[in-house]
Amino acid sequence: MQTPTACLIIIGNEILSGRTQDKNLAWLARELNEAGVRLMEVRVIPDIEATIIATINACRPAFTYVFTTGGIGPTHDDITSAAVARAFGVPLEPHPEAVAILEKHYTKEQLNAARLKMAETPRGASLIENPVSAAPGFRMENVYVMAGVPSIMQAMFANIKHELKGGARMLSKTVSAYITEGVIAEKLSAIQDRYPGVEIGSYPFIRQQRLGVSLVARGTDEGDVQGAYQEIKNMLLGFTQEVEETDLAVA
Amino acid sequence: MQTPTACLIIIGNEILSGRTQDKNLAWLARELNEAGVRLMEVRVIPDIEATIIATINACRPAFTYVFTTGGIGPTHDDITSAAVARAFGVPLEPHPEAVAILEKHYTKEQLNAARLKMAETPRGASLIENPVSAAPGFRMENVYVMAGVPSIMQAMFANIKHELKGGARMLSKTVSAYITEGVIAEKLSAIQDRYPGVEIGSYPFIRQQRLGVSLVARGTDEGDVQGAYQEIKNMLLGFTQEVEETDLAVA
Repeated sequence: MQTPTACLIIIGNEILSGRTQDKNLAWLARELNEAGVRLMEVRVIPDIEATIIATINACRPAFTYVFTTGGIGPTHDDITSAAVARAFGVPLEPHPEAVAILEKHYTKEQLNAARLKMAETPRGASLIENPVSAAPGFRMENVYVMAGVPSIMQAMFANIKHELKGGARMLSKTVSAYITEGVIAEKLSAIQDRYPGVEIGSYPFIRQQRLGVSLVARGTDEGDVQGAYQEIKNMLLGFTQEVEETDLAVA
Repeated sequence: MQTPTACLIIIGNEILSGRTQDKNLAWLARELNEAGVRLMEVRVIPDIEATIIATINACRPAFTYVFTTGGIGPTHDDITSAAVARAFGVPLEPHPEAVAILEKHYTKEQLNAARLKMAETPRGASLIENPVSAAPGFRMENVYVMAGVPSIMQAMFANIKHELKGGARMLSKTVSAYITEGVIAEKLSAIQDRYPGVEIGSYPFIRQQRLGVSLVARGTDEGDVQGAYQEIKNMLLGFTQEVEETDLAVA
């Protein structure tokens, strides 16, 4: 079975302006891998309806799953739900279950028009529960629409993870050394040639003014990953004894 | 003059796997804004040649400037330069100036085939100097190809920033309060309606178990931004005295 793929669409001017450092990408990538789904692309786009529609419609036929984060709150700049409805060519309308959730969470006085907007979904959507702040996300076919606040997004994802049909998990082993890539490139390439089923990545870093590299073997077959990793480690030991099995490139 | 736009293409399996937290997006977004260029889209893609080619060719006619990070080192997984050459339909070949730079930086013994690969650029490229580790980036038309290591990317960008033809800078003012979005949404929307030239963003956050929101007024006209900001602040003060002019949502 081919590993199912995913695309993450991060919607929000605040990420593109550099104001907010995204924290959802790395978290979701690891969770998806746990579920046997491979994150193959991420797009960060602004709160512009035409861009959201075009991006969703470009991505949903191209990947097994599409996840969006951001833009489903009560304020005027929260336009994701309306854009998803337009992308699917269906009306945006109050979802009875979502209305019920908000009626339970808020008093009558609190549940104003802006908050009721959070109960609107594209026709045909199923809800994604939000145990943090009540207002739900939703799914339309293979598109999962989630909040942008990391703690809420994570709680929503926990409620849909079991729905994902995953393939084999990617396993990875990393070894690092204070050595420059140019020194090991040729030998590393030869190891890659011997393990076509393993992706060998080489990630240079600079730490305390020293150049180093982290070498990562990734693949779905444990024996192959272990074999490639051992060869990489032995190769490094041919250059230096200062080899660490921790991942020095991850800061 | 319309504000020039930019797209950032982050190339690298290590970002998509969640192994490495990207640090280039937020940094570049702020630098571009300083230069009067607006980052409108970011794509994170894997080290797959066909994907790199398709992404570059989709983005270069759509934005004033395209920046790529990652994949220009000496190892087998560094395939960005070859993919850019194919995207432009030109051969990849040793760039004489780049060869000279590497010959000056490395001894004859050090300058092996893998390192010489870093001197190969698409025909017609102009170099982007790399004061950190010598091997240059390059520009092809409106596409700037840079290293993925943040300190190297930043040093490269410093050498090309003056080339960018920018428009007006986006100015922004932020005010935060421990209040939920639903309470202020309607009044905020009315302020937005009075300032069509200002983008008002509403960014909820959770800090020490308290829900809050940061409200950001962004625009190119200082008077408008200041006016919208003052109205937003006054509106918040109608609900709570605990209003902070710092940006609580930025962690």
